[in-house]
Amino acid sequence: MSSYLLNNDTIAALATPHGSGAIAVIRLSGNKAFSISETVFKSKQLKPKLLQLKNSHTAHFGVIVNQNNQIIDEVLITIFKAPNTYTGEDVIEISCHGSTYIQQQILQLLYAQGARPAQAGEFTLRAFLNGKFDLSQAEAVADLIASHSASSHQVAMQQMRGGFSHQIVLLRENLLNFASLIELELDFSEEDVEFANRKELNQLVQTILQSIRKLIHSFEIGNVIKNGVPVAIVGKPNAGKSTLLNMLLEDERAIVSEIPGTTRDTIEDQLIINGILFRFIDTAGIRNTTDVIEQIGVNKAFDVIKKSAIVIYLFDVASIEKNILQQDILKIKEHLKNAHLLVVGNKIDELSKDELLHKFSGIDNIIYISAKQNQHIDTLKNNLTQLFNTSTIQATETVVTNSRHVDSLLKAQQSLEKVNEGLKQNIQSDFLALDIRYALEALSEITGNVSSEDLLGNIFGKFCIGK
Amino acid sequence: MSSYLLNNDTIAALATPHGSGAIAVIRLSGNKAFSISETVFKSKQLKPKLLQLKNSHTAHFGVIVNQNNQIIDEVLITIFKAPNTYTGEDVIEISCHGSTYIQQQILQLLYAQGARPAQAGEFTLRAFLNGKFDLSQAEAVADLIASHSASSHQVAMQQMRGGFSHQIVLLRENLLNFASLIELELDFSEEDVEFANRKELNQLVQTILQSIRKLIHSFEIGNVIKNGVPVAIVGKPNAGKSTLLNMLLEDERAIVSEIPGTTRDTIEDQLIINGILFRFIDTAGIRNTTDVIEQIGVNKAFDVIKKSAIVIYLFDVASIEKNILQQDILKIKEHLKNAHLLVVGNKIDELSKDELLHKFSGIDNIIYISAKQNQHIDTLKNNLTQLFNTSTIQATETVVTNSRHVDSLLKAQQSLEKVNEGLKQNIQSDFLALDIRYALEALSEITGNVSSEDLLGNIFGKFCIGK
Repeated sequence: MSSYLLNNDTIAALATPHGSGAIAVIRLSGNKAFSISETVFKSKQLKPKLLQLKNSHTAHFGVIVNQNNQIIDEVLITIFKAPNTYTGEDVIEISCHGSTYIQQQILQLLYAQGARPAQAGEFTLRAFLNGKFDLSQAEAVADLIASHSASSHQVAMQQMRGGFSHQIVLLRENLLNFASLIELELDFSEEDVEFANRKELNQLVQTILQSIRKLIHSFEIGNVIKNGVPVAIVGKPNAGKSTLLNMLLEDERAIVSEIPGTTRDTIEDQLIINGILFRFIDTAGIRNTTDVIEQIGVNKAFDVIKKSAIVIYLFDVASIEKNILQQDILKIKEHLKNAHLLVVGNKIDELSKDELLHKFSGIDNIIYISAKQNQHIDTLKNNLTQLFNTSTIQATETVVTNSRHVDSLLKAQQSLEKVNEGLKQNIQSDFLALDIRYALEALSEITGNVSSEDLLGNIFGKFCIGK
Repeated sequence: MSSYLLNNDTIAALATPHGSGAIAVIRLSGNKAFSISETVFKSKQLKPKLLQLKNSHTAHFGVIVNQNNQIIDEVLITIFKAPNTYTGEDVIEISCHGSTYIQQQILQLLYAQGARPAQAGEFTLRAFLNGKFDLSQAEAVADLIASHSASSHQVAMQQMRGGFSHQIVLLRENLLNFASLIELELDFSEEDVEFANRKELNQLVQTILQSIRKLIHSFEIGNVIKNGVPVAIVGKPNAGKSTLLNMLLEDERAIVSEIPGTTRDTIEDQLIINGILFRFIDTAGIRNTTDVIEQIGVNKAFDVIKKSAIVIYLFDVASIEKNILQQDILKIKEHLKNAHLLVVGNKIDELSKDELLHKFSGIDNIIYISAKQNQHIDTLKNNLTQLFNTSTIQATETVVTNSRHVDSLLKAQQSLEKVNEGLKQNIQSDFLALDIRYALEALSEITGNVSSEDLLGNIFGKFCIGK
């Protein structure tokens, strides 16, 4: 990272996915984007060196030629003039035939003419540095590209379009107002005046703290939206764990296989239900019908439950007795921590409805299914999605999905709680002022008003090249 | 295929490679491309339905919204108005974020608004049907996208830009001229006149035949340019076959690995030397150091040599005697057919220079190397590439790379040889005229003047979707 923040050289990279396709797009950004392109681009309509005289946002057909005047490809070049571009700099997009050979040849030519290979996320970094995005919006670009479900897409889109930033800016404004009054007192500290009404201030701190707590709390759902909901299916051998998992996956396979670029291998134990991604933990174990219940007390079983947001306890309605079931449920609940438990009775086709109702009467909230015969699987799915119901999230509501943001919010919360405590104990203004400053700084980190190079390197290094 | 030639409905497809990337491009073509796009595209600068009032070849920033007015993505739409577009129809390119989720959402929206998923090659098919390309040029588009080496790229580019078509058109013009004179004679057949000077006609047929033979002959090199040069390395056990192959691959690995999207598995036994692709046949056998020489007479060994364009006979200079070497070379030459033989003496580090010169004196053209110590490997490479020296091909020279074209050229040749024979035997004009028509038709097949639907389906079905 180090020095590249200061560079205003011209960067180039393939912006479309690697591999062969009908077309590929190579992107250039920087103050030499036009002059570099013009050395390799020839067109009937355009004389050499005339791209820069054309209007911004126009596309031009022509050929890319190498140093020996050999034609590398017929291309379409679209020009974007600073500052109304993605990066805020001059941007050129070269749309060429999607052969990997041609992509490489054109990139090599651009590098030979003085462009530098772009680092991961460097186009978006430049957009940030040129004020096109704040930091939290820039981070959302990477999330958006990685989004694989309706909910992760929605949250990333809202963040990219500035929803989250707007809320943080509001919090900061309120806090700044407060800070300036307190700091005014410092100037007059010997006169023992109070410009800031302590009661009003106290109310303001409460309001801001409440907002911050709500945002921190939203990460619980934001994290599963972004990374998927971890689910464990546990139960005795032959409860039907692998049959259930296969049935869930089977049902969703058609939808999943419509997503190009995903292979069966990588998605096999993930599925999207009603726009939410569910990840099945340690399903290898489930598939081998390892008896997790029997192994409670063994670290492995604890781990599976500990890592889950939802634990499905599956039992065979025909072979289990009511008292054993009750004991098992109690045993699992001891180890649940914050996870949700779904108690699911399988193989209902082996009992009559009357037998079933009678056998487990008094145990609430059992979901009865037949995994084998695909009965009530939809009920189970609805129960899964209701636990993480993202459809209730308003389009305008802010959900925090980034652990960096949570860290900053936690820091702000900590400082504000000190302010809160200080107000109660009527401590000196200068201590209050210091903690308010800390809270302001923590909030600033989110939108990137006071970002260090290290922080930026860490954030943008996770992007793909070409973005 | 059947009916889709007649459809002028609007087609849509992802034009960039599948998978995640910074951006992806979705392409629409057809007379509803604008109206469909306008139903899903919203922009600050543009009122709804106003894309069609904008100039062709301009790019517009905005958002794609779904039926519920939810924002799917921020995109850049570039508009291209018929007829100056790739397909000759109205074309819209939507440049969106490269998330597979977003790609699918936008495509589904376009389909819901009346676009149809494009079939493989359908954009280029439309370009052909609208006279943007002839058939041989359209075929070159697919070759260009698949090109992986400098030589295959050069030949495809020349063909796409009409070099080959131009030559076929010239041949046809000459032949048409001839045909019309002969056919004029038919109208006056009872008067026994000769409008076509038989001597001049004979000369013309010779010239055309010569051109056609040259084109057919060029397929020998055209085919290896497109599909790679098949090479077999044969030799006794411990001659160092696998060491040599590894050394060749090792050396080129760096270059090969610069090509993104290629995996080590698929390229392991292919390498590009001086812009030419070499494919090593049955290298699994070579790697297991199966002794091909010992097995001559066995079908498998025959096959390997039969499939090769180059046979490298590798021997260990230290352990072979001159008379055995001579016998082996003779044995191989019996089975060579049209393949080139390179006799390569390995392990020269185990003999002194004097010993080496003395031991095999009188046997010509041995290439001496040490595979292990990487000595003279470059000499071997130069010998390989000289056999298929594509650098001597002029940029303007036509090389046939497509077996369909060779078939047509062979048909034309056959008919013209009948004309040639007929002229010698002074046969009736009407027979001459018929064979000339056959030759003309055969040549027309190449550029697609008289193409059947089946033929088109066969050609464009091999394209990727989105082109």
